[in-house]
Amino acid sequence: MMTERWGIFELTLNGPQTGNPFVDVTFGALFKHQNRVIHTDGFYDGDGIYKVRFMPDKEGTWAYSTFSNCSELDGMIGEFECIMPSAQNHGPVRVKDEYHFAYEDGTPYLPFGTTCYAWIHQGDEMEEKTLATLADAPFNKMRMCVFPKHYDYNTNEPVYYPFEGSLEEGWDFTRFNVEFFRHMEKRIGELLALGIEADLILFHPYDRWGYSTMDCESDERYLRYITARLSAYRNIWWSMANEYDLMQAKNLMDWDRFFKLIQQCDPYQHLRSVHNCHTFYDHGKPWVTHCSIQHSDLTKVTEWHKLYKKPVVVDECCYEGNIAHNWGNITAQEMVHRIWEGTIRGGYVGHGETYVDPNDILWWSKGGILHGQSPERLSFLRQLLEQSPQDLMPIDIGYSYDVLYALSKNDEYFLAYCGSGQSAYKDIALSDQSSYTIEVIDAWDMTVTPLDGVFRGKCRVKLPAKPYIGLRIRKVE
Amino acid sequence: MMTERWGIFELTLNGPQTGNPFVDVTFGALFKHQNRVIHTDGFYDGDGIYKVRFMPDKEGTWAYSTFSNCSELDGMIGEFECIMPSAQNHGPVRVKDEYHFAYEDGTPYLPFGTTCYAWIHQGDEMEEKTLATLADAPFNKMRMCVFPKHYDYNTNEPVYYPFEGSLEEGWDFTRFNVEFFRHMEKRIGELLALGIEADLILFHPYDRWGYSTMDCESDERYLRYITARLSAYRNIWWSMANEYDLMQAKNLMDWDRFFKLIQQCDPYQHLRSVHNCHTFYDHGKPWVTHCSIQHSDLTKVTEWHKLYKKPVVVDECCYEGNIAHNWGNITAQEMVHRIWEGTIRGGYVGHGETYVDPNDILWWSKGGILHGQSPERLSFLRQLLEQSPQDLMPIDIGYSYDVLYALSKNDEYFLAYCGSGQSAYKDIALSDQSSYTIEVIDAWDMTVTPLDGVFRGKCRVKLPAKPYIGLRIRKVE
Repeated sequence: MMTERWGIFELTLNGPQTGNPFVDVTFGALFKHQNRVIHTDGFYDGDGIYKVRFMPDKEGTWAYSTFSNCSELDGMIGEFECIMPSAQNHGPVRVKDEYHFAYEDGTPYLPFGTTCYAWIHQGDEMEEKTLATLADAPFNKMRMCVFPKHYDYNTNEPVYYPFEGSLEEGWDFTRFNVEFFRHMEKRIGELLALGIEADLILFHPYDRWGYSTMDCESDERYLRYITARLSAYRNIWWSMANEYDLMQAKNLMDWDRFFKLIQQCDPYQHLRSVHNCHTFYDHGKPWVTHCSIQHSDLTKVTEWHKLYKKPVVVDECCYEGNIAHNWGNITAQEMVHRIWEGTIRGGYVGHGETYVDPNDILWWSKGGILHGQSPERLSFLRQLLEQSPQDLMPIDIGYSYDVLYALSKNDEYFLAYCGSGQSAYKDIALSDQSSYTIEVIDAWDMTVTPLDGVFRGKCRVKLPAKPYIGLRIRKVE
Repeated sequence: MMTERWGIFELTLNGPQTGNPFVDVTFGALFKHQNRVIHTDGFYDGDGIYKVRFMPDKEGTWAYSTFSNCSELDGMIGEFECIMPSAQNHGPVRVKDEYHFAYEDGTPYLPFGTTCYAWIHQGDEMEEKTLATLADAPFNKMRMCVFPKHYDYNTNEPVYYPFEGSLEEGWDFTRFNVEFFRHMEKRIGELLALGIEADLILFHPYDRWGYSTMDCESDERYLRYITARLSAYRNIWWSMANEYDLMQAKNLMDWDRFFKLIQQCDPYQHLRSVHNCHTFYDHGKPWVTHCSIQHSDLTKVTEWHKLYKKPVVVDECCYEGNIAHNWGNITAQEMVHRIWEGTIRGGYVGHGETYVDPNDILWWSKGGILHGQSPERLSFLRQLLEQSPQDLMPIDIGYSYDVLYALSKNDEYFLAYCGSGQSAYKDIALSDQSSYTIEVIDAWDMTVTPLDGVFRGKCRVKLPAKPYIGLRIRKVE
């Protein structure tokens, strides 16, 4: 048997079907490579089938031995060969040097996220449409909920429910609906094939089924089950919640507990965060790998950077659209502006779209197709960043009165953004030891126009006196 | 002799020229109407001329008697007749019912302010050009400094200086330059003729002459002199400072002291305020008649209203223009948007303009001509307000998730604003006891389009799905 590095090795065994295997049977395996042993929980997948999934992070031979409180499942041994990853497989995403992300093989990862909260609950036709849209879109991260969603424009029942039971007769939180999880895994695997990280939201408040108000034991059973099933997917990120602060049945200690449980159960230490509505969770806590923020003022990225010393992901800064809600009615211009503003300050700002639709198919929750004008511009921004040196850091290159932020690499490279104002010029301070070329970028029109001549030291840069202008400044070799 | 109500009665006397009449001679008059006596300070106007000016607020006979420490000026008596005001004369502006302004005769006053800080220091040609521009502009309040200004784009010397002396040899703060004050009075009188209130800034930090760092005695002598000269102009408002918090030579007690001194010296109790840069003065203090605010977030008007229980004037929310400074590079759209946003929340938001000019003639400081696209839209807004019932109060007419502010009169009239978003509809809550017509206003295109039918109770209003849309909602009679 062969599994590629950061691929999924899956061991399937037959075991008991009587009683409630979800709670009665403990099952897992130890995976061993050289002198390293990794404890991995397995899960019950219905019909007497038990599985354990494992994501090897080193090439070579891995040996395993199962453990269980059930003799049929206990003490099975075997091994498999971990081979080179395929070309598109760079491993899971990790935090790099405090503020950045990179895949485990060192390839830079620049999050360009979008949100389709309930896309996996819309049935195959719509879900495949969403995947087709994503194949041509600039996004490499998807915020999505495990549980179905009940909210404005979101009144349809999901195809699958996570637990056995029904809305009418109640749910048996001790019995998972394996169809639900198999379906979710399939979709997460399809995202992976598209190079998209699944920022998986474990809890959220928009609920009519009772999944947001389960008891403590059920919450934990659910978290253990989902981490056992999904941790081996290299594109998983754990988001404890969307708008955790709106979940009245939970308190801060619950969120701490969930973080710590995931930290304990996930053998691969995937990224962990929690997303606010009004009030931030303390992103400084040690189990939080990066900030996951809802906020409309992207100039604050600078402050959050300093405060948390972690990557700042602003998953939600309002959505391009035209619904009545103010969080879903910003123009494409404003969406692009906010994403540039936060990006140039060193953050990673997410997209979303909420255009009124006769059938209530809004991208932000159900997926489908994109109608807006921002994705094309985000593609342009992503290209600019991918053409830039790695691990850029935000600095202020303005002089006199105002800050003018730029992503920079030493004294060699600057990608600046002048905002929604329409300045006819900006004064900037470059090194007076070097010469620089400057290109004027129009973030909306998606043009790059070189300025004549070279620049050095403190200098005045003529601008087209319109909003959404950036500057690319490069040292002359 | 006859003076119209709220006009200026001026008594001129000859007195001593020796010594320093500005400090040696006390002079003033008591003005009496029926059983009311008003103490009025006079001033020295050079060449042995002493004057006292008086703004009568009642029709009928006023008797006066002068007082002085100099026998030539003491004990002169006389009387004059105060007659009906002329058609355009409504008296000074007063605060009305906590949040509004009205002229003393009861005529509503809706501030539409602009700023030309140093316009009276630019020489006659430019100053007359400014007046000609104002004659065709929608503005009825002008923020302007007494002292000349030293700042970016403001490096020219003024024509007149307020004190005797020179920059090279120093100033004699005990001797006022009467030419300076006569010139300023002339300009203030010309504003009055155009129906424009002079929001006169007494101190400011942008100084190379030393007027921002005078000693305590000189500050007070200056304030007494200027109130003696100018209080009788009915269009005077006293602004203690522009950006008081940048004046490092003054502390909060100084500002309290200046307010109290003006309150004591001005017989007519003109409006008093002080303008911040970063940090607000406490507008709740009793000598402050209204808030004078610099801030870019106009949604906060709602909060300031509740906090201070006084009219909220936001004199500065950035300026339409294209200079490098972010406070002077907002688009005309954004300027119009901010003014609507603050207005509909019950505030009074000021205009300003800062377009780069080859001769550094920027409206915001020097006046001249207007280049921008916002004044026309402010004219449109002013018309809408003048066509509205008086004394509108802001309320939230939105339902479900978001606030939607409207200026309202009982259940009869609403002027709402949907902001910079592009909602395709809004849900509003009207009385279900009445029927209403609704017109859609495009604040940028300056159109008013009636919607078909009538509306009542909770209802959905279809919008053109673009930014800067207002609604005028009127009860069907």
